[in-house]
This record gives sequence, C-alpha cells and structure tokens, in this order.
Amino acid sequence: MSVYKSIESSTSWAALLARQPENLREALTADRVHHRLVSTGGGLSYSYAAMDLDEPTINLLAVAAAELDLLSQYKEVASGSVMNIGEKRMVLHHLLRGQPFGPVIKDGRDYGAFYHSEKDRAGDFARKIRSGALRGSTGKRFERVVQIGIGGSDLGPRALYLALEQWARERNLLTVRASFISNVDPDDANAILAGVDPESTLFILVSKSGTTQETLANEALVKSRLAQTPGIDPSKHLVAVTSETSPLARNPAYLDSFYIDDYIGGRYSATSAVGGVILSITLGPEAFSAILAGAAEADLAAKEPDIRRNAALLDALLGIFERDVLGRPCVAVLPYSQALSRFPAHLQQLDMESNGKRVDRNGKPSALPTGPAVLGEPGTNGQHSFYQLLHQGTDVIPLQFIGFRQNQTTYDPLFEGSSARRKLNANLTAQIVAFAKGKDDSNPGKQFPGGRPSTLIFGEELDPAALGALLAHYENKVMFQGFAWNINSFDQEGVQLGKVLTGKVLAAGGPGDPVLSAYAGLLGAL
Amino acid sequence: MSVYKSIESSTSWAALLARQPENLREALTADRVHHRLVSTGGGLSYSYAAMDLDEPTINLLAVAAAELDLLSQYKEVASGSVMNIGEKRMVLHHLLRGQPFGPVIKDGRDYGAFYHSEKDRAGDFARKIRSGALRGSTGKRFERVVQIGIGGSDLGPRALYLALEQWARERNLLTVRASFISNVDPDDANAILAGVDPESTLFILVSKSGTTQETLANEALVKSRLAQTPGIDPSKHLVAVTSETSPLARNPAYLDSFYIDDYIGGRYSATSAVGGVILSITLGPEAFSAILAGAAEADLAAKEPDIRRNAALLDALLGIFERDVLGRPCVAVLPYSQALSRFPAHLQQLDMESNGKRVDRNGKPSALPTGPAVLGEPGTNGQHSFYQLLHQGTDVIPLQFIGFRQNQTTYDPLFEGSSARRKLNANLTAQIVAFAKGKDDSNPGKQFPGGRPSTLIFGEELDPAALGALLAHYENKVMFQGFAWNINSFDQEGVQLGKVLTGKVLAAGGPGDPVLSAYAGLLGAL
Repeated sequence: MSVYKSIESSTSWAALLARQPENLREALTADRVHHRLVSTGGGLSYSYAAMDLDEPTINLLAVAAAELDLLSQYKEVASGSVMNIGEKRMVLHHLLRGQPFGPVIKDGRDYGAFYHSEKDRAGDFARKIRSGALRGSTGKRFERVVQIGIGGSDLGPRALYLALEQWARERNLLTVRASFISNVDPDDANAILAGVDPESTLFILVSKSGTTQETLANEALVKSRLAQTPGIDPSKHLVAVTSETSPLARNPAYLDSFYIDDYIGGRYSATSAVGGVILSITLGPEAFSAILAGAAEADLAAKEPDIRRNAALLDALLGIFERDVLGRPCVAVLPYSQALSRFPAHLQQLDMESNGKRVDRNGKPSALPTGPAVLGEPGTNGQHSFYQLLHQGTDVIPLQFIGFRQNQTTYDPLFEGSSARRKLNANLTAQIVAFAKGKDDSNPGKQFPGGRPSTLIFGEELDPAALGALLAHYENKVMFQGFAWNINSFDQEGVQLGKVLTGKVLAAGGPGDPVLSAYAGLLGAL
Repeated sequence: MSVYKSIESSTSWAALLARQPENLREALTADRVHHRLVSTGGGLSYSYAAMDLDEPTINLLAVAAAELDLLSQYKEVASGSVMNIGEKRMVLHHLLRGQPFGPVIKDGRDYGAFYHSEKDRAGDFARKIRSGALRGSTGKRFERVVQIGIGGSDLGPRALYLALEQWARERNLLTVRASFISNVDPDDANAILAGVDPESTLFILVSKSGTTQETLANEALVKSRLAQTPGIDPSKHLVAVTSETSPLARNPAYLDSFYIDDYIGGRYSATSAVGGVILSITLGPEAFSAILAGAAEADLAAKEPDIRRNAALLDALLGIFERDVLGRPCVAVLPYSQALSRFPAHLQQLDMESNGKRVDRNGKPSALPTGPAVLGEPGTNGQHSFYQLLHQGTDVIPLQFIGFRQNQTTYDPLFEGSSARRKLNANLTAQIVAFAKGKDDSNPGKQFPGGRPSTLIFGEELDPAALGALLAHYENKVMFQGFAWNINSFDQEGVQLGKVLTGKVLAAGGPGDPVLSAYAGLLGAL
C-alpha cells in the first residue's frame, strides 16, 4: 500500500515554497510553446508554456510526486483498492472505459465486465429507440429524451450532450434530442414539460441510491403530468438508471433499467450508464463508445511515470504550485468552444466536490489549502465579461484554456477576410499572450501587468474521442491533486448536514429549532 | 465634488482591521433573523442575519461610508457628473428607469426623456410584432426573436429573459420566444439557426459602437443564411440596437433601430433598449415597464442614509469587510430559483468587470484587494455539486442566497407530504443554517465547522418588479463597492490588449511576433 502523506511533508516542499513565480514576460518564448507540449490521448495536447514556473521547479514537483507514490495510488484506485476510505468503497470509474491496470475481479465478480455489459445493453436499447422499433405507448417514435437527475446525474451528462449536439446534428445522427430536469424547483420541470410532446418523449430517471429527494419529486411531477395525457402509459415512457439494490431496480414502473454500483461516484459517472443511456440514444451508441475510447486513452496516458509526459499528473502538480506555493485560491476554465458551454459547470462539481475538503485521510486538518474555487464560461463570451478582472484585478487567477482547430459545424463564411473559426482562435492566441506578457502603458489604467499563467488543452476537433479524453484528463488531474493533498477525493460528507436540516424543516410539527423556524417562516416553508 | 479616497484611508479602517469574524454558531438567533432585514424595493427584502459581523463592526462601516461620501457619489452618478473618469463619460443607467436625483439636462438634452422615448418606441414596435401587425417578409408572424450581441448585450438580457420566460408562459404572454447568439465560434450561431424558422424569426443586432467584431461576424453569418432562404428580405428580419453615432444607426439594412448612448455601459444596459427591445417583444411592454419600476424602487432605496436601512450600501460594505478584513477573495451567488439560472453569469460580469481593477481613480495601485471572483449556480443543483467545498473546504466563501415564497408555474403536486416549492425553500433554509452553525461530529470527516456567512434576498414571487429590483440592487451594490475602493467601476480597459493582439494575429502577413505565431500555429489560426 502507498504511504499516504501530503505534499507538504515531502522533502522538496521547503524548496518549492521558496520558489517565486517565473517572469512570464521573458520566459514565454516561441521555443517554449513548441516544447512544453504533452499528449493527453484522444488527439489532444496539453500546453504548459505559459505557466509561470521554471524547469527546476518542475523537477522539485517531480521529486514530490515520486515520493508520494502518486502513480501507485492511481494504480490502487484502478486495481480495486478501497480508496474511498471514509465510505469504505472501491473507486472504479476507470473500468467504465478500459482496464488501465488490468481487470478487477472480486468474489467472482468482474466489475469491468459488468460495466461493459450494461453499456452494451444501453446501446441495444438505444438502437431500438433510434430505429423506431421501440416507441411510446401511443405508437409515436421517441423524438425527445429527458433525463431526471441532479448533481453527477445531471451536470456531466448534460455537459457531454451539449458538447456533441451540433457534432451529431451535422452528421444526421441527432434523431432524438435531449433535455434535462434537475432542480427541485417545480419551475424547472414545468418549463421542460412545456416544450415537449409527452407521447414522443422518454424520461430517464437517474439516481444511484434510488432515494434522491429532488429526483424522486421531479419524477412524481412528471408521472402526474403523464397520467393526465390521454392514452399514455407512464411505465412505457420511463427508464431507470440506478444500482441493483435500489428500489428503482427491476421495478415494473419502468420500461427498462440500467445499472451502476456503489463504486461509481456521482461526479465520476458520466461514462457509466448515467451518461451512457442518454448519450447512446441521442448521439448513437457508436459515439458513446468513441467517448469511452478517448477517455481510455487519457487513462493510459495518466500512467506515464515522467511528469513531463503525463498531462494529468503535471496539470495536477502545477495546480498545487499555484494554489499552495503562490497562494491562488481560484481557477478559471475557459473553453473556446460554444459546445463546451456547460463543461465548466461539470468541472466545478468534479473539482470542488472532490477536493473541497479540510480533513486529510488520517482525519487531521489538511496541512495546506486544498481544492480551489472553479469558475468559467466559454470564450469569447468571457472576454466581454469577467476577463477584465483576470487581466487587471488585484488577484491572479490561473487559467485553463481549451481550444480546437476546427468547427463542429461547417457553415462559416468569411467576414472581413477571415472565418469566424479563425477569429475565435486568434482571440484565444491573443488572450494567452496578453495574460502572460501584459503591456506597459504610461496611463496606469491601461497598464497590463502580465504574469498571469495559463495552460491550454487543444486538438483538431471536439469529437467524441476528444471529449472523452478531455473529461478523463480532468478526472485524473483532480484525483492526483487529492492524492497529493492526502485527502479523500471520493466522498462528499459535506452534503449530509443540509439533508438532515431539510428533513427537520419538512417534518410534521415543524423544525423544532428557532433559527430554522425563523428562516422557514420568512420563506414560507413551514 | 466628493472626496475620492479608499476605505483603507478612512478613520475607522484600523479598527475594522482588528475585528474578528463573529461566531455565528452563537450569534445567529431567531431574533436576529427577524431584525436584520432591509427592504430593497420591488417587494424584496435583504436579510443579513447570517453575516459574521456584529453591530459595532457595522457601526465602523457606517462611519467609513459617511466619511467616503458614498451616497454623495451615487448622487453624482445619477445627476450626470463625469463619474467614468478614465473615459470621461457620465454614467446614466439609473435614468433608464427613473430619476432618483431629478432630471439630467445638459446642452438642452434631457437624457432621461431620451431613454424614455426610446423605451416607448420599443414598446410600440413590440406591440406590432406581438399582434401580428408587423410580420416577416414572407407574411409569417414573428414567433422567435434572436438577439445577436456579446457581453452586456447578451448576459443581462438573456438572464432577464430566462428569469421571466415561465412567468410569461403561465400568463399566456409568451407569444414570441427568444434565443441568443453571442460567441464568435460559428457553432453558436449555427446551433441557434438550426432550431429556428427564418421566415418567422426577427434578429436583433446589439452593439453600442456598431463595431463589435464578434457581433458583426455573427450578423454576417446570419444574413448570409437568410439570403439563402428563398423569398426572405433580410432587412425585414433585422433590427439594430446601437448608438446614434454608430454605422448601424438609421441604416436601411435594418427594419428599425433603437438607441442608447455612451452613458450606458454594457453591463449596466439591461434596462435600456439593449434589454428592452427583446424583453418587450417576448414578455410584453408592460412586463418590461414593471421591470423598470422595480429597478427604480431599488434605486430609490439606495438613497437611504442609514446603512442599516440601505440594502445595496450595506451589502457593499459587508462584502468589503469579507474581502479585505477577513481576506475572502470569492463570492458565490446561489439563487433558489431555476428561472435565475443565468443570473449568476450576469452578476459575474457586472461585478468582475466593474471592480476587477488594480489601479484607483488617482492612477495609484489600489490600497486593497478589489472585486472578488464571482461564481454561482441555482440551488438545489449546487447542493449536489460544489457545496461540498463551501461547507468543508479550507477557504470560506461568503454566500449570497436568493429565494421566493411562490413558484412562477402553478403545477406542483404533493410528494411525500410536501410540495416541491416547500422542499426547495426547506433546502434553502437548511443550507443557511448549516453553513452558519455547522455541526460537531467525533468523525473529523463529518465535522462541519460552520461560521460560513451568507446573505439572503427574498420576496413573494420572481415577477418583473422583483427581478428589476434584484438587478438594480446588485448594480448599486457594485457601484458602492467601487466608490469605497476608490476605483472606476465604469470602464473596462482590461479588454483592450486582447483586441489589439487578436488584430495582429489576423493581420495580413501574420502576427509578426514569434510567440503569437507559435500559439496561432498550434491552433491553426494563421
């Protein structure tokens, strides 16, 4: 078993703490742009030329990575060790798309084979929906699929669907479109239902435990509406994605059920049936398989021992340098791709829920500040919004850019001598350099300090394989950061107290607590 | 004229710096919930019971506010002083919805009257669209309106439209629906165009200067597509919102044009024609007028000298206490209303673009850290995502909750004994208390430290007046914070360098800079 300790206790930490940010105005050269490049799999590359740390600093990070056994800990995860130590669970999401360290078989159960068979079942089901062989209870083809889920059952699948909706449309693959209901606010479900025809709509209920209050409340609202539509049999319009031990499993209220298990955490479930059913139906099973193949490539790339050739590990360590040596508490994710409009929201969950922890794996207060606050919107939109602060604010926020050489859609007429695609990537190019190098001006208000570091993940096109690799890159980066901070990235104890207090407010007889009662009174929740 | 200085130079600053965060576990009582309430106008109230500062600290903030003449500076803004000092412009967005300090008349021009007449023209135009009196060039009624704009021409109008889309649908007011194109990524425009019928679609081009590259490129793409649709006259499907001196003004390429001027900053333009045309068309002119009436109420409420009775001023000062005394660099905006799904993105621009400044109004480095990083997503979704970090992360992020007693939509069946609305507000109640008070546990991983401060803005229902007041509350909060930091909240010099470098990349002959060339090469932008 690996030694679990924080990077703060590594022999190189004192030397790391003494490092200053590199002066990017001088350090960022064309040569460095060509050399600080790492493949992440899925046709993507990771560029860290515009990060403000020098080679000796990277060497110190490499020493720490080796000392902390970060790669061994990855192997432990993907080999089925109980790495979610608080909840005493294995962490098996890598097996959803490959077997980076071989199969995991325990008590005769081959976990990878189980996930694979569920993927195949979802693919077969999707083909029947897409061909029209399986139809709604009034005989109409399904043209819309609505996922009912929250958190990991919503953000990841939604981000991936939006990332490939136009890609699929351009290829005439988008025979069924997706919508999502997540919020317990009934205005969410009512808004979605106002835009769909129940007869041609399939609902996917997603809850691993089968007990998520928001999701069950939304299911009840949807079922109640379906029941009001003449001729509709709700059980023919609902499928479940859940665990085999949940009350939703093998339940005649659903047309079919697809399974995950306790070893697939919500925020790591996008490549499981949680994402697989809706993505196979809307984009086609082949596209979903390509997402998994891209993710599997990134998982293999994350095995590389040399941190300069392991994008996920390097990204993790550079992030810790920014967070804990340079004291920068936020990260901005800035995709130059409208299709990735909700990808930052998924990463926000992935990162903040995994590493927003103040206690280490030994139950001691974390030696260092852990997970950063994550924000982000697509460029160029962000350029006309919050980039002002990124360029000229008092704090430095490290940036994570994402870009692609090609569009997903083909229509792109020239305007003022260039395509919109070229304009988009010219903007991305310009921003990286502007942040790093700044610009002097005699007018202090027009002075750009520069020295604002960024990374760039880029590839040819945002296709399923690239998307899968992008997703897995971030999953692995967050995992490595958790190891380096010696925290449990796989539980989420911080969600429990709110659930308990919500139950108190809703209890018969009222909350029985004066402050809860006072707020509930203001909000009409008694 | 007011004395321009930073709160750091106020006589109470040393005493403020010595203040510790209040212990919310003890300080947050039911009594405080009932007493720390301020009206913001529009039927909304601002609760600061769960903020971690005591009455003596608030008294110190009040001393600073008086010393810095914060209210006088507001008066200067709304009375037409040149408060955007870098660009030497007045800042007149308050006049879009009222005259909190009387009319502004200069050189015979009554600015408020001008804005009001443009609002009336937009209302008349909207009525013709909504009634079908004005139709597309092939005779079809307009059923869709697509705004083409970016930054302030996109985020504010989009957030407001989404905030009231269901409200309008429930009242049978939503005869025309809205979409938005903003990103220069052609996948954005192509995706929107794939979902609309050109014959029944009106496009609104929004650019104050008439030279915004992304917006003009998107217009060119849209026009090129329209020109391919047999029988369509593009000039009958396009209107412009711009300034009277722009190339788009009084241009026969547009069906009509509506005007703002240089004194309406992009991020403060949602209540101008920038938001007014699309909101009047989709929600009706009466709803837009109600938004303005709510905003005007909040503007009047912001004149109150007693900081305990001025929600915007108090919110501003409490935020500065968190930012600069307690050293908390982020803020999370958490609306418990799905309709406010994009409101945090608007606030992100409003706040970060206004106050992400490192130089004060005298051209000196800011004495204090200025504008925070802003993030946010609707609750309950965020609870299942990044709230983990908010509860148990190593950093404290002050929270700004928003909630309403009633739904916008009416369908809300009971499930497990309560409506979804009650569940939503029970969750909101529970979160405020969980963040403030935490919970002890012998298992360190299940320990909640508490002491995580929050404010709450709440009202009966998210209707147009409440939305207008909410918007203006934040505009005024951000304005007061800028005054207190002695920065210019009304310019955005930080966007310029990127534009210049983008132009270099796109220039004939290439960027002429090796680093730009290197990145542009990676991204295929040469």
